[in-house]
Amino acid sequence: MSETTSKNAVVLLSGGLDSATTAYLSASQGYTLYALTVDYNQRHKCELEAAKRVAAAIGVRQHIMFPLDLRLFGGSSLTSEMEVVKYVPLEKIGQQIPTSYVPARNLLFLSLALAFAETVNAETVFIGISATDYSGYPDCRPEFIEAFSETAQLATAAGVSGRSIRIETPLIGLSKKETILLGLSLGVDYSLTHTCYDPLPDGKSCGRCESCLLRRRGFEEAELPDPLMQKYV
Amino acid sequence: MSETTSKNAVVLLSGGLDSATTAYLSASQGYTLYALTVDYNQRHKCELEAAKRVAAAIGVRQHIMFPLDLRLFGGSSLTSEMEVVKYVPLEKIGQQIPTSYVPARNLLFLSLALAFAETVNAETVFIGISATDYSGYPDCRPEFIEAFSETAQLATAAGVSGRSIRIETPLIGLSKKETILLGLSLGVDYSLTHTCYDPLPDGKSCGRCESCLLRRRGFEEAELPDPLMQKYV
Repeated sequence: MSETTSKNAVVLLSGGLDSATTAYLSASQGYTLYALTVDYNQRHKCELEAAKRVAAAIGVRQHIMFPLDLRLFGGSSLTSEMEVVKYVPLEKIGQQIPTSYVPARNLLFLSLALAFAETVNAETVFIGISATDYSGYPDCRPEFIEAFSETAQLATAAGVSGRSIRIETPLIGLSKKETILLGLSLGVDYSLTHTCYDPLPDGKSCGRCESCLLRRRGFEEAELPDPLMQKYV
Repeated sequence: MSETTSKNAVVLLSGGLDSATTAYLSASQGYTLYALTVDYNQRHKCELEAAKRVAAAIGVRQHIMFPLDLRLFGGSSLTSEMEVVKYVPLEKIGQQIPTSYVPARNLLFLSLALAFAETVNAETVFIGISATDYSGYPDCRPEFIEAFSETAQLATAAGVSGRSIRIETPLIGLSKKETILLGLSLGVDYSLTHTCYDPLPDGKSCGRCESCLLRRRGFEEAELPDPLMQKYV
């Protein structure tokens, strides 16, 4: 990893495939990294352990595990007793907003990342969202990120003083296959990550939720084995 | 209070003078109210009790006290050991961003309110910010609210489906005096509220922080007694 700059960046690290790739990519660009993982009382809490593994593998300066209990609001299959939908035909994923949509989640995560960035003088926030091979969430679209960036500028003392904080979405245009190939070129160990929305009590992935289906297709298209494969049921 | 509509609104209720006035105003417009108070581990935690008193006085449908530990980030005299500035000359308040600025606070609060609004089908979020007689926070300006409204539309399933959630800032152009007169016309009992950033252990207001100074001037200009006056040191 290059250490040519000492610029700071905050990276949102869920513990999934996309955020791990994004974290490795930002590290490869020489940033000193501040990782932020949000414990939103999600159904798949085991992703928090994955985030710790990834942060340790990269060697971040600081890793904050931020509690944000979105079950207080509910409204999603990830934050309530609503069922996680399984076996959605792949060609239908992304065509409508699924029950796993969590109200205002990325807006909240980016706002937290912005607050963190402001306090550690970071110039960039990295978020591993993708608008390709995605689940149809409104807050994964480039137009949302553009609007957020403008709002961030107006919301902060940093923005007012001309020291604006950039939001970077390096995976926004990549397919899952392309993300995996990028990650492997950067040395990401995908066995550290966790993807499933509805894991079994032993942490194994269900292999059938949208999130698993998209990951599986990504590895299949890349013609590579998924190191989590043996963990699918 | 009129009950001509059964529309839902979320109101951000800090327990201060402005948010209490805003809550009464929204209730007077016939909304069914969902109050949201953020326990951000602020120095002046006693404002949370004030928020409970105000919510009870209005009779809201639901009151969520949301824990959001912004001390994990710090960066403000309200969320760290940094000292609260006292005795700022009144004419200088608002000319620069004070140490009581909390990074991205209103962005976070509005994002939480938006998530709440989406889950309870609220059409409006009320926030009692003011750009007049204010402390110079960037996230109290109308241009921030405009940008946030656009972002909110893009961030949510509600926005995508055309059911956009409006952000209302009824106090944005009012002086503190005007806010107080409005509140009294609506029956607000300001003895229930709390304003001070740096209260004494017994809950008395310091009377000298920016927030107290602005409140005191408001009541003085209105030529009315502040019911908290005896609580100033």
